[in-house]
Formats: sequence, C-alpha cells, structure tokens
Amino acid sequence: MNREQAIAAIVYRGNSVENSHIAHVAVVDAQGRLLSGFGDSSRMTLARSAAKPAQALAVMETGALEQFGLDDADLALMCGSHSSETRHIQRALSMLAKAGASEADMRCGGHPPISDEVYRAWIKSDFVPGPVCSNCSGKHAGMLAAAKALGATLEGYHLPAHTLQQRVMQTVAEVCEVSGDAIQWATDGCNLPTPAFALDRLALLYAKIASAADTDENARSPRDAELARIYRAMTSYPELVAGEGRFCTALMKAFNGQLVGKVGADASYAIGIRGVTDQQARAIAVKVEDGNQTVLYAVVCEVLMQLNIGTVAQRAQLSAWHHPPMLNTVKVQTGRIELTFSLAPI
Amino acid sequence: MNREQAIAAIVYRGNSVENSHIAHVAVVDAQGRLLSGFGDSSRMTLARSAAKPAQALAVMETGALEQFGLDDADLALMCGSHSSETRHIQRALSMLAKAGASEADMRCGGHPPISDEVYRAWIKSDFVPGPVCSNCSGKHAGMLAAAKALGATLEGYHLPAHTLQQRVMQTVAEVCEVSGDAIQWATDGCNLPTPAFALDRLALLYAKIASAADTDENARSPRDAELARIYRAMTSYPELVAGEGRFCTALMKAFNGQLVGKVGADASYAIGIRGVTDQQARAIAVKVEDGNQTVLYAVVCEVLMQLNIGTVAQRAQLSAWHHPPMLNTVKVQTGRIELTFSLAPI
Repeated sequence: MNREQAIAAIVYRGNSVENSHIAHVAVVDAQGRLLSGFGDSSRMTLARSAAKPAQALAVMETGALEQFGLDDADLALMCGSHSSETRHIQRALSMLAKAGASEADMRCGGHPPISDEVYRAWIKSDFVPGPVCSNCSGKHAGMLAAAKALGATLEGYHLPAHTLQQRVMQTVAEVCEVSGDAIQWATDGCNLPTPAFALDRLALLYAKIASAADTDENARSPRDAELARIYRAMTSYPELVAGEGRFCTALMKAFNGQLVGKVGADASYAIGIRGVTDQQARAIAVKVEDGNQTVLYAVVCEVLMQLNIGTVAQRAQLSAWHHPPMLNTVKVQTGRIELTFSLAPI
Repeated sequence: MNREQAIAAIVYRGNSVENSHIAHVAVVDAQGRLLSGFGDSSRMTLARSAAKPAQALAVMETGALEQFGLDDADLALMCGSHSSETRHIQRALSMLAKAGASEADMRCGGHPPISDEVYRAWIKSDFVPGPVCSNCSGKHAGMLAAAKALGATLEGYHLPAHTLQQRVMQTVAEVCEVSGDAIQWATDGCNLPTPAFALDRLALLYAKIASAADTDENARSPRDAELARIYRAMTSYPELVAGEGRFCTALMKAFNGQLVGKVGADASYAIGIRGVTDQQARAIAVKVEDGNQTVLYAVVCEVLMQLNIGTVAQRAQLSAWHHPPMLNTVKVQTGRIELTFSLAPI
C-alpha cells in the first residue's frame, strides 16, 4: 500500500491543512469477493466491538438464548456498545438475572460512559460505575449465559483458554473464513479476547449477516438462521446497539431495516446491506489508520454516498457525521473535513 | 516526504498493529539551521497554542506589561494553555482588572476544562464556564491590555483587521523569519487568529527564546530582553503554563530551567533548550500528522532521549508520557506504543 495514496480525509483550519488521515475500505459481496476498496482493503485490523455479532453468534450456538429466555432486545445489547443509559444497564442486569448470574461474576470494569449526559449525571450523584455499566455489559452477560449453557465454570469465562472462548475463536474463524491460526487475538478494553484479521473478512461477516436476512426463512442453514436473527435484533433495537445521539443508532434508524452497522473502538466500522432487486447483499468495512472516530464516521458516510446506498434523504439524516461542523468556543466555523478518496472498482 | 518513512509511532494491542502515526520533527540551532529531523521538518503547521510566546511578544512590545503592572506570573499565563484551575481563573481575572478590562470584553468562549478534576467540580456545582475560564484566557487578557496600551478600541481586538492583530502578524513573521505573506492565518479554538508556517520556523522561535536567555543581560537587544523574559516567566511558573498533572508543567519542572516547552492543539509541540558548555541553544518542534496528543507527548520524550537532553533521571520523570501505560477497564495491560523513528542528522 502506498500511504500517500491512502489519505482519505484532510482536516483544514482556514486554508491550512491541520491534520490528514489514512483510511482503508473494503466492499465485498456475500461470498467475500472484493467489489471495491480504498487503501489496504486487507489491512490486518483489530475489529474490536465490530466483531460483537460474531461473538454473539458463538453465544447463540450454545443454546443460551433459548435456555435462559433471552430475547431479540437482549441480543441487540449483546451486539452493542451501549451508552450506559438506564435502559442499557437495566437490560444487562435483567440478562444476568435470567441466566442466574450476577454482576460479581462479570470480568469487565466500569468506565466513564460514552454518553456525556450520563457522565454528568454520574458525577452529580457520585456514582461509581461497576461492570454492568460497561458499554460491553450486554456481551459479557451473554458470555456468562453461554458459559452456563455449556455447563462450564463461570470462573475465567473471559480467558482465552476457557471452553467458551475456544468456541468463540472457532466460530469467528469459521464465519470470517479465516484459518484459526491466521487470526491474531489480543485483549479488549472490556477484558475479553478480541480478534484481528483482514479488513475484508470483517466485511464478509456483515455481508453474511445481511445475506442471511435476505434468505427465505425455510431455506436458511441453522447458522444462517442465527445470523438473520442478529440482523433482525440489531435493526429492530438500534437504540440498544449504541444509544441516544450515537452514530450506529442514527444510521440504522435512517436506513430503516435496509442495513446493519456497528462501530469498533480505534475507528473500525462494518455495515451489512440487504440485497435489492438486481443486487445481492453487500458489506462495507472501514478502518482509520490512526484510530480517529470523527474521521471514521465521515468516511463511512462518504462510502455510503459513493456506493449510492439508500436515498439522499436517508443519507442526509447523517450529515452531522458526514460533514461535522467544526466550530470554536464561540461557535465560529474554523474549518472543515474534506473527504479526498474515491472508491476504486476492483 | 515519503509517508511510509514518516511513521513515528505504532500502537500495538497484543501483537497486532492497532494504529500507526506519522510525525514530523525539526531540530534547529539559534540561527534556525536544521540540525536533525524526521518526516517533513518543514511541514506547514498550525502552531496553535505553541505560538503563544510569539503572540505574547507582540503584547509585550506594546508596553502593556509595564503600563498595567503585569508580572512574570501573568506573562506565564499569557503563554499558557491552562487547566482552568482556580489559580488560573483568578489570575486571568486579576490581569483583566489591572488592565481596566472585564470578562465581558473577552471574545473567547468557555469550554469543558482540560482538567478532569475541574470538570467534575464544575458539573457538581452546575457551573457554566465563561470566557475567563477558557484555557487561553491569559492570552486574551494580555491582548486586551495590549489593545489598551496601543490606545486602540477593545472592540474587535480578536479580528485580523484590528491594529493589535496586525502587529501580532508582523511580530510573528519577524521572529519566525518568515515573510508575512508566507504565513497562513486561520481562526483558533479561542477565536484569535492562529498562524501556520513551516515546522522548523516554530523551532526557530523557541531557539531564539532559549538563546535570549543564554545571552548576557547587557548584550541583549530589546526584543531579546523580552524573549528572555518569556523564558524566565514560563520556566519560573510552569504550573501557570499548563496545570496539575499536565505534560508542559511536568517537563519544565523536571528540567528545572534548562528548557522551555509548550503544546499546541492538534498535536504540535515546541521546546527551546538553553546552551551548555560547548553547545549553543537549540530547539525542537514536533507535529503529529493526525493530531493525536498521546502520541505527540511520546514522540517529544523520545526526541529528548535521542538528543540526550538532560539526565536519565530527569527524563524518567516523564516516563508516563514516554511510555504511556495502556490498561483496560480492569487494569490489564493490553498493548504498547512503539516509537519507530530515529532522528536523522542533516
């Protein structure tokens, strides 16, 4: 990859270049074939929370959802990086209760919430967040349920050697179609293993999710049925995948069931798009090389525009992310982000 | 510049590359000659708050400090980006009072403070920050004093066409040795004009400040006397240049008068280093291409190490910035920043 040619966004202050950002894009079909891209479409990428649907799939395949009566809203929270709003924390607590587990079993930690409004409320009330407040608490509650469903110990459920994580690793390799030893595993912010694999394999995961949703209910494999359920859950409860004012929530609301999208920390993003008349399901994965999230959302919106996904009116609902206003402390406009890439057909 | 060769830092999570960062470094002598560098040492760079000493120089040359009895501590605050601690806000208010101006005259805006401790206190008390709470309030108070010293109107003191800003522009061009029309001016976060010029010219500014401090008091030009006073003020009151727990403050405390350092928003930094026995004053300027501040401080510390500035014990006081611990929400180490550049002698 030539980095000079991988600059996707330039931030101007006045007429001067303040910052420039490299990004990578992969657009694939449901077979994982690269349709178009930018930068290094196969960049080895830590998917972080964008991998949550694959982790949720492994949880689902233990039978935990049926065994403990976890519903689509619970599944959406498992796939989400929530804002620690009351509805999110309450649902995580309810998932734990259904599974017969408790907050004390969780091995994630509390942290300042993604929502500034929630943060202010916590500070005002001297609230100290516990594990159930983690933006990943849905995933952890799901993992605890899955460990129980497997008859495994809850102790160490988050460690790579635990039976559950071994299954997660195998599921991720299968669904992303990467050999297990080609995946690099690291430790996530929430303390679970997190995979790195080629960016286009992240896109493939989301293409499969969208494609499964397209497939006739009676023609689906058992795994496709689970993937279709993930699609249904995330698009039915977008407010549980992120939260008030967040991009993932706004994106899925704007596109009203036509696509599923999820962010990962350090600026990865994946979107699965359902097929239309003469076009099968596709997916997009994006990684900003330096981890900048403002740039990530702008790039994602630009990709949607260049691929002509949805209507102008739908995309306009995301304009605050596509062209974020750059205002100073007295609301004077100081600059702009210019998106400088064009997706190349492969 | 070859961007592939300008990668200065790689952030790993486990063994995977999470992010990579391009940076530019210029090291110059007091004549502005490039001694060593990395990346594009002449990158056109918005110096932002790293330019404050040059703006303060223009204020000083109006005679405002003498006229209104502003002392070295006030000057340090004029050159600083403070944390909105009580001592900072009180001093800005006192500067305004000395100059016969008020907060209502200021054309900067309040914002969430750099200090998280201050932020929490503001939230708990429902405090709404005004202009005097801006991290740049010292600079603005100085500008108001300078406008008065010039006999100019306070109205519009922040606008490029105002007499004061015209003088600032000329002073910046002179002291950085750039022709005025080669400087690009934009609007800063605090609403004052902010200059962009080649990175090595930012280094030259700081080399002159350190060199002026080296020069015998009786041999200094009037401008050198002001530059030497800036050096003295910033190094005598490092806690007014930034604040509790901040890098600029820790840096100047650790080096105990041997150097002066200042950060600019979007990841620029400049350091002026006093001469020693057989080496005249030098300076360093750094810009991280994507604006990442954590990476900036790590790069700055690495430059100090590679140039062997100060003692091992002095540099060790900055180890939390040189090698920032990357811990997750349960304090497990998840990765590291690797500094991958070597300064090239020119």
